[in-house]
Amino acid sequence: MKPLGPIPPGFAMIDGQLAIGGRKARDLVAEAGRTPLFVYSADRIRRRVSDLLHALPQSVALHYAVKANPFEPVLQLMSELVDGFDIASGGELALALAAGLDPARISFAGPGKRTAEIEAAIAAGVTLNLESEGEAVRALEAGQRLGITPRLAIRVNPPFDLKGSGMKMGGGAKPFGVDADRVAVMARAIIASGAEWRGLHIFAGSQALSADAIIEAQRSSIALAGVLAEETGQALPHCNLGGGLGIPYFPGDLPVDLAAIGAALGEALDQRADILSETQFCLELGRYLVGEAGVYLTEIVDRKSSHDELFLVVDGGLHHQLAASGNFGTVVRRNYPVAIATRMDEPADEVASVVGCLCTPLDRLADKGQFPRAEPGDLVAVFCAGAYGASASPAQFLGHGPAQELLV
Amino acid sequence: MKPLGPIPPGFAMIDGQLAIGGRKARDLVAEAGRTPLFVYSADRIRRRVSDLLHALPQSVALHYAVKANPFEPVLQLMSELVDGFDIASGGELALALAAGLDPARISFAGPGKRTAEIEAAIAAGVTLNLESEGEAVRALEAGQRLGITPRLAIRVNPPFDLKGSGMKMGGGAKPFGVDADRVAVMARAIIASGAEWRGLHIFAGSQALSADAIIEAQRSSIALAGVLAEETGQALPHCNLGGGLGIPYFPGDLPVDLAAIGAALGEALDQRADILSETQFCLELGRYLVGEAGVYLTEIVDRKSSHDELFLVVDGGLHHQLAASGNFGTVVRRNYPVAIATRMDEPADEVASVVGCLCTPLDRLADKGQFPRAEPGDLVAVFCAGAYGASASPAQFLGHGPAQELLV
Repeated sequence: MKPLGPIPPGFAMIDGQLAIGGRKARDLVAEAGRTPLFVYSADRIRRRVSDLLHALPQSVALHYAVKANPFEPVLQLMSELVDGFDIASGGELALALAAGLDPARISFAGPGKRTAEIEAAIAAGVTLNLESEGEAVRALEAGQRLGITPRLAIRVNPPFDLKGSGMKMGGGAKPFGVDADRVAVMARAIIASGAEWRGLHIFAGSQALSADAIIEAQRSSIALAGVLAEETGQALPHCNLGGGLGIPYFPGDLPVDLAAIGAALGEALDQRADILSETQFCLELGRYLVGEAGVYLTEIVDRKSSHDELFLVVDGGLHHQLAASGNFGTVVRRNYPVAIATRMDEPADEVASVVGCLCTPLDRLADKGQFPRAEPGDLVAVFCAGAYGASASPAQFLGHGPAQELLV
Repeated sequence: MKPLGPIPPGFAMIDGQLAIGGRKARDLVAEAGRTPLFVYSADRIRRRVSDLLHALPQSVALHYAVKANPFEPVLQLMSELVDGFDIASGGELALALAAGLDPARISFAGPGKRTAEIEAAIAAGVTLNLESEGEAVRALEAGQRLGITPRLAIRVNPPFDLKGSGMKMGGGAKPFGVDADRVAVMARAIIASGAEWRGLHIFAGSQALSADAIIEAQRSSIALAGVLAEETGQALPHCNLGGGLGIPYFPGDLPVDLAAIGAALGEALDQRADILSETQFCLELGRYLVGEAGVYLTEIVDRKSSHDELFLVVDGGLHHQLAASGNFGTVVRRNYPVAIATRMDEPADEVASVVGCLCTPLDRLADKGQFPRAEPGDLVAVFCAGAYGASASPAQFLGHGPAQELLV
């Protein structure tokens, strides 16, 4: 038997079924028309944003990283809740504009921007977080071609990382951003060119659960912003401190201490360099805003045994849940939170592995978990499915195609 | 510096550029209209099939596993070259039928077949490789509902695995197939039901490079087929021996010894049990047929340094080449064969990492490889891109969308 990850608190049960947004799992599947299905709870997203607004200093703006979940109804909901958006491609720019987001609230980061993407962003009035000196040249040239003043910020490769983070984005040689010691020269050139100077983007890592590590990275980022503004000789209009706040996926994971982070961020901002006194700071969060709001529902198609082990075969799998299968940037496979959504009130008295419908041993959603006895037709819920699920999985693999998505 | 994987032999160079199917990389990109681009060489696929037909016993049929590369022109080419096709989903069934493949030559394996997929397969006349007793019941019921005699085979979970294989599909508790000791009872029930009995599918693993391991698995499979046919009390019309033949991806990998495998398979078939004398044996290959025929071309968008390390940032990445990035079922990241397609005749005198355009440190196509000096606008080639590339990668991740594909 292997432990399952912690189910995010706050989900209700109705008639023995998992309920999302007050509605039973089977009713949600009936509305969507089929499984597999991602269900996102608007209420959980609202509460998460509200918790953040309560914990963070009032002066700090909140941005949403579209890459975490670009489902159009989620973007539309976010447009009422957050101050800005971060996109990572021309494709996400198109999604953001289609969802009616205000381009003036959008910034675009990403190390391999094509010239066509840079032009589209400048034409729309989006801020470019420049990843290199070469990209700055291309952005200035594109602005000239278009006759539009580009809005430019620099993404900084900081000389520190976010300790304990799932993804380190700073500290040492990185493809992201510009090494801190080259930023001031580059910033002065941008300002001298007549572009609209928007400031800095400092992203040290993501998916950290330690408040101390996040506090330290935020303090270091604010200090670095002060140093770089001084070196540039000009105040920073904006400073994006990145995100980094993780969510508990695995056994033993605990939620981040949001109150501690908010209080420490307030102190760090109170102590910031004078040159940053008018700077608009923001946090850019993706997974933390939507991850725990999503549940992946998939139907059991077969119940079978092999050499005394029990397998529940579902109609979903790693083609929608690559990370949950343990195959995306993880070395040791651990179980996400998984449950039998149609038997939430029954005792977990058998050990089973939940495997996907793909013809590969990689396709395993729960390894030897303890569950209530489930049969074909029952629904399996994989929690923490709101971020980097539908869009970060190989939906075409083996021809199964994408899952349904529903915001309730 | 880290070594790069071995470039498959036989690619030509024209005017310093990599040539595929006799055409220069830049001309192929011009025809496709943009990068990133998968180019598949029909000539290389034909030669691979021809090598197989030459090495394998004449009596052994050749099947293509559609999952390896379901691009429609590849399926159409294969329909002239191989004897049968294996599909893994209702989606692949639709692709196969759209490509004009003969349903009588198609079999369908996969552990999570939905009832609707089973019905579609029976209606089309496709053979189902049954993965469990429960699936057999559903298939027989579906046949009755449709008034069509289903064509049924059993996928066997063999009591041995393919040693040294990248993916073990047998040996111990597995979600695939039916444990060998339950096959005969199940086969007799299928025959008694009046279904068309098609035989067995025995798949022990995939991506093995050791001829000895493949020979041993094939011998064991043929012996097991004899035992199971005897236990069933009826001859086997068909026996699918699976695939398993790998291709060299990584430094030090060597091609499989096809002649040795073919000779040993001939001996094993000569010595097969009498009850198998009329059995049609086949090999089901995917990666081995198409993997080395494909090249992924992606354009360098940026050349940048960070802390004295050089990065070539390309407009492609793990959203098309998940396995090449080292993030799909691998524990230790190693480099695929990668080259600068537009500078094949220049000396490799600098060390660079080729990183994709995604905003994640996972997106690395070559780690500290030795390359000719390349600039933005140059094309990078990732070899061994013909199988499990375009269809097995998260194309929607970060909104970049799918790559172009071209069969030449």
